[in-house]
Amino acid sequence: MASISAVFSILALLNFVCIAFAFDASPLQDFCVADSTGKALCKDPSTVTSNDFFRSGFHLPGNTSNPYGAAVVVASATTVPGLNGLGLTFMRADLALNGFFPPHFHSRATELVVVIEGSLEIGFITSYPSYKYYSKILGKGDVFVVPVGLVHNVRNLANGNSVALVAFNSQNPGITNLPNGLFAAQPEIDNVYLSKAFQLDVNTIKELQKKF
Amino acid sequence: MASISAVFSILALLNFVCIAFAFDASPLQDFCVADSTGKALCKDPSTVTSNDFFRSGFHLPGNTSNPYGAAVVVASATTVPGLNGLGLTFMRADLALNGFFPPHFHSRATELVVVIEGSLEIGFITSYPSYKYYSKILGKGDVFVVPVGLVHNVRNLANGNSVALVAFNSQNPGITNLPNGLFAAQPEIDNVYLSKAFQLDVNTIKELQKKF
Amino acid sequence: MASISAVFSILALLNFVCIAFAFDASPLQDFCVADSTGKALCKDPSTVTSNDFFRSGFHLPGNTSNPYGAAVVVASATTVPGLNGLGLTFMRADLALNGFFPPHFHSRATELVVVIEGSLEIGFITSYPSYKYYSKILGKGDVFVVPVGLVHNVRNLANGNSVALVAFNSQNPGITNLPNGLFAAQPEIDNVYLSKAFQLDVNTIKELQKKF
Amino acid sequence: MASISAVFSILALLNFVCIAFAFDASPLQDFCVADSTGKALCKDPSTVTSNDFFRSGFHLPGNTSNPYGAAVVVASATTVPGLNGLGLTFMRADLALNGFFPPHFHSRATELVVVIEGSLEIGFITSYPSYKYYSKILGKGDVFVVPVGLVHNVRNLANGNSVALVAFNSQNPGITNLPNGLFAAQPEIDNVYLSKAFQLDVNTIKELQKKF
Amino acid sequence: MASISAVFSILALLNFVCIAFAFDASPLQDFCVADSTGKALCKDPSTVTSNDFFRSGFHLPGNTSNPYGAAVVVASATTVPGLNGLGLTFMRADLALNGFFPPHFHSRATELVVVIEGSLEIGFITSYPSYKYYSKILGKGDVFVVPVGLVHNVRNLANGNSVALVAFNSQNPGITNLPNGLFAAQPEIDNVYLSKAFQLDVNTIKELQKKF
Amino acid sequence: MASISAVFSILALLNFVCIAFAFDASPLQDFCVADSTGKALCKDPSTVTSNDFFRSGFHLPGNTSNPYGAAVVVASATTVPGLNGLGLTFMRADLALNGFFPPHFHSRATELVVVIEGSLEIGFITSYPSYKYYSKILGKGDVFVVPVGLVHNVRNLANGNSVALVAFNSQNPGITNLPNGLFAAQPEIDNVYLSKAFQLDVNTIKELQKKF
Repeated sequence: MASISAVFSILALLNFVCIAFAFDASPLQDFCVADSTGKALCKDPSTVTSNDFFRSGFHLPGNTSNPYGAAVVVASATTVPGLNGLGLTFMRADLALNGFFPPHFHSRATELVVVIEGSLEIGFITSYPSYKYYSKILGKGDVFVVPVGLVHNVRNLANGNSVALVAFNSQNPGITNLPNGLFAAQPEIDNVYLSKAFQLDVNTIKELQKKF
Repeated sequence: MASISAVFSILALLNFVCIAFAFDASPLQDFCVADSTGKALCKDPSTVTSNDFFRSGFHLPGNTSNPYGAAVVVASATTVPGLNGLGLTFMRADLALNGFFPPHFHSRATELVVVIEGSLEIGFITSYPSYKYYSKILGKGDVFVVPVGLVHNVRNLANGNSVALVAFNSQNPGITNLPNGLFAAQPEIDNVYLSKAFQLDVNTIKELQKKF
Repeated sequence: MASISAVFSILALLNFVCIAFAFDASPLQDFCVADSTGKALCKDPSTVTSNDFFRSGFHLPGNTSNPYGAAVVVASATTVPGLNGLGLTFMRADLALNGFFPPHFHSRATELVVVIEGSLEIGFITSYPSYKYYSKILGKGDVFVVPVGLVHNVRNLANGNSVALVAFNSQNPGITNLPNGLFAAQPEIDNVYLSKAFQLDVNTIKELQKKF
Repeated sequence: MASISAVFSILALLNFVCIAFAFDASPLQDFCVADSTGKALCKDPSTVTSNDFFRSGFHLPGNTSNPYGAAVVVASATTVPGLNGLGLTFMRADLALNGFFPPHFHSRATELVVVIEGSLEIGFITSYPSYKYYSKILGKGDVFVVPVGLVHNVRNLANGNSVALVAFNSQNPGITNLPNGLFAAQPEIDNVYLSKAFQLDVNTIKELQKKF
Repeated sequence: MASISAVFSILALLNFVCIAFAFDASPLQDFCVADSTGKALCKDPSTVTSNDFFRSGFHLPGNTSNPYGAAVVVASATTVPGLNGLGLTFMRADLALNGFFPPHFHSRATELVVVIEGSLEIGFITSYPSYKYYSKILGKGDVFVVPVGLVHNVRNLANGNSVALVAFNSQNPGITNLPNGLFAAQPEIDNVYLSKAFQLDVNTIKELQKKF
Repeated sequence: MASISAVFSILALLNFVCIAFAFDASPLQDFCVADSTGKALCKDPSTVTSNDFFRSGFHLPGNTSNPYGAAVVVASATTVPGLNGLGLTFMRADLALNGFFPPHFHSRATELVVVIEGSLEIGFITSYPSYKYYSKILGKGDVFVVPVGLVHNVRNLANGNSVALVAFNSQNPGITNLPNGLFAAQPEIDNVYLSKAFQLDVNTIKELQKKF
């Protein structure tokens, strides 16, 4: 799943551009195309082309040959530089037979999922009312919404591949996969603490820390 | 095209709910599901169900039997009440042979379009640099971005139907179709003024005002 | 009208300064005077003078010897560098006999107009309820408000010059003149498409594209 | 000066309307005209008229027969209900011979002043660099900007009346007149404390508290 | 830990008050004291007293007789109604010998902790760079910051009680305790899915779901 | 008191970093640690350490040997670089016997005070309802809230030292001490104007201007 995190996270290094002012409720320009050279904050408008607002390939399946049986292709300010500063990210998610995304959350975006092939179960857990689980099994043409900041699960229920398109209302939604966030963190989180918090014996925690 | 405007515009009457504070950068709750009874601002959380975050039917073509040869199906706070306050709208657009959307703008949202069938030409006109036209012919799997507040055009170039999915980063993007906004406005805009502004003779303006 | 657009638009290149943070509801400094040298984001405060917050000449008529019979003088971050980051633009508009501003919109600001000489008709067209026209004929001392993002018209009804002062609540309101935005766009928008959208024959569209 | 405060302050009771969401950078409707009956948050759009966006009388002098020799007429959501939610306030200020506004600040708006008659001295005091005084003597047609939240002074330097028009980028700028805020506060602020803070003897403080 | 969640979460039902507008960068009033009767959005200002901005008891230890050995006392809009709309929450946290807070995150606030007695280890896990663990052992007078939306851990390392004061920059920070969020969610999350995601056998997952 | 202003104000020069976009309601990264070298906006994440989020010494009294008998120690983006962009400032305030902070306001933050030793009187003056004084005498463990932008007073009522911890919801709250802001401003504010505004004779004003 590391690659999925990476796709989101690589944006973090590009986000130093700014077109907002506290007293302006909107961006201050039509667009601020990310300047890949890093020399300027935005590309000189005279060098901006239609291709800066374009990306192809969302009809092609991603490579799901990984432990999760899952892959994403993303349209973000990294891959579509015209998106810079406009508060939108879009992606295609492929899940192979039995594929899944582990429990995770995006602290900076609401997510809307539409299934275009197969069948997915998607659910989110509220913070209040405490720990209520809202989930649906989605078929082709079904839409489901995951509010910002809530932990959610996604798994493929189809007999073959499933495909979804996903919209996020942030330039950089952020992603924390919970098993990884807890057990793969470096330096390691104290295993006695995790043992008490998860009510698992210390050896099980140590094994989890080795696996992730 | 009136029906397309209507789909967006009906939201306007539902938007009096508030979960934002000037000093909080995020919503103050997990969600605020729109209360269709109008008695409360948000539904009592204990009555919220998974269906409040769900809508089906985005795999089905809309009815394009209208002068534009175009139709939209929308997931918004009106049709997916869980979207209320979360800043996202999503839609499916169908365009029949020769179908089009007239020049229009959304003053409150950036728009991302992905073509899932057929071929569309999409283009937007900048305000600065003045009146530059950025456009692309999109095929299946192609994505294009229209920055917030810019006039844009969409037309079907396929030999048959084209279908696109569209994400907006606002609960209520707003839509002004320019021919209608100018020539269908009631009470009528002074036709001598329009004649001078568009450099068309007054009779042509009068005819346009009759048509729209 | 190009010059009027230009006055607004030139700001676009100066707006890369940033004094806002998502978690701060206000600017983070007393002011951030635009640094005309481009070396720093804000001028060193020790070099800021009272003149950075000052501009003279708003009692002098603009030069209306142009096809529109209209002119503007603007106080913005370009001409009053202390305005940088503070979310306000101000201007004086002069309209000669029969002068007018063509239909246009500002996607980033609400506009308040006060007539100080002569008589103007001002009106805006709503997006919802669809295409309702709200207009007034203003005399000396009359104020009218145009909400953000709505198409509006302005024309002089006086027997001579009219003068208005105008406040915008954005550092860079943005302006799209509709006739120009549609017919002067480069590269040209497909004339068959415009013909269908405006229900005008293709030759009329071609003429319009030549004129603008 | 009480009346000037009052003009601003009365807005405070009308501000419970909401058309903003944390995830929407713009208002969610074309407008939300303040409903004077208090039954609804916004007036039913079908009852909104052009007059909701209009106010007359800004060419007429205010009544300066008060200890300050100063008067204001205000276009705000109270007097121009269409301004509700749009983040702008506008006013005309009249100052008689020797008239003045005592030191005050607006915690919620930047202010732009244009003198249309006479001559005013306007100056503001920074918080950082600490206590630097930026001021100008303005004549007809001169503009000066006072950044949000800074204490500022205004006095008439003309041999007769002076008149200014003033734009604020907030629906409710707020105003605290310092002499009044300190010495007219009820219940009274401890006079020994004020004596130490202002380095004035206690009896002088007591007299000030009686005067204001 | 349920009680700790509850203290935060109960706010969720009170948050329907609104004093923000998209075009105003600040609240529109001095304050909007939460009206406990629910009849109005804000208390009538004439009934507001100094006590609305006050709470006592932050010098008294909380009751840590619970499985976590931890307790919180909170100053929020629920307990200090004057905080309503102002974007701040404050709390005192007591941790008994071996007390801890399980891994959790606040999706709506940055957190600043100052230890006033004892010794605490506090650490947070980043989303990017992926899963880096930043932690410190804090003694008396030490401050540590947890950026918004990141998973963090807190445990008592003192030989006796530890006490911290904590500031959050949101009216309702939100809290999701991860073990509970995952294993106590109702209806239950599919245990085969959790088994795969956490690389634990299904029986271990089932036991965890019973425990939480 | 100059030193207290300075502690806040020095931040002003560091605030040119930006991680906010108008269309993103949250920061775009986990953190943006202030780069003290000034070469980059944020420190390279690979060089960030736990110490960037840490500061010690809040258990130690400040040096109150100054005319105010008051001192502050501050955790801000200057002293805790990890706070950069996160909208929080924290401080410890010590007041010796008879110590006080003169009337002042923070235009960019709400303030929450908790007394941890001694006794303080804290009060704020509203702008509307005009000039009402809300104050409390706080003992150990008492909390009081001062809404953003309001003038407030703080004085020590204990027989010895008092200590408070204070949270602000801004990276740079800003501070204007009123006596200094009025009488220490350079260049000097016209003393005849101040004489009229404060209803004090000109010689008293001149003495005040010498003292401050």
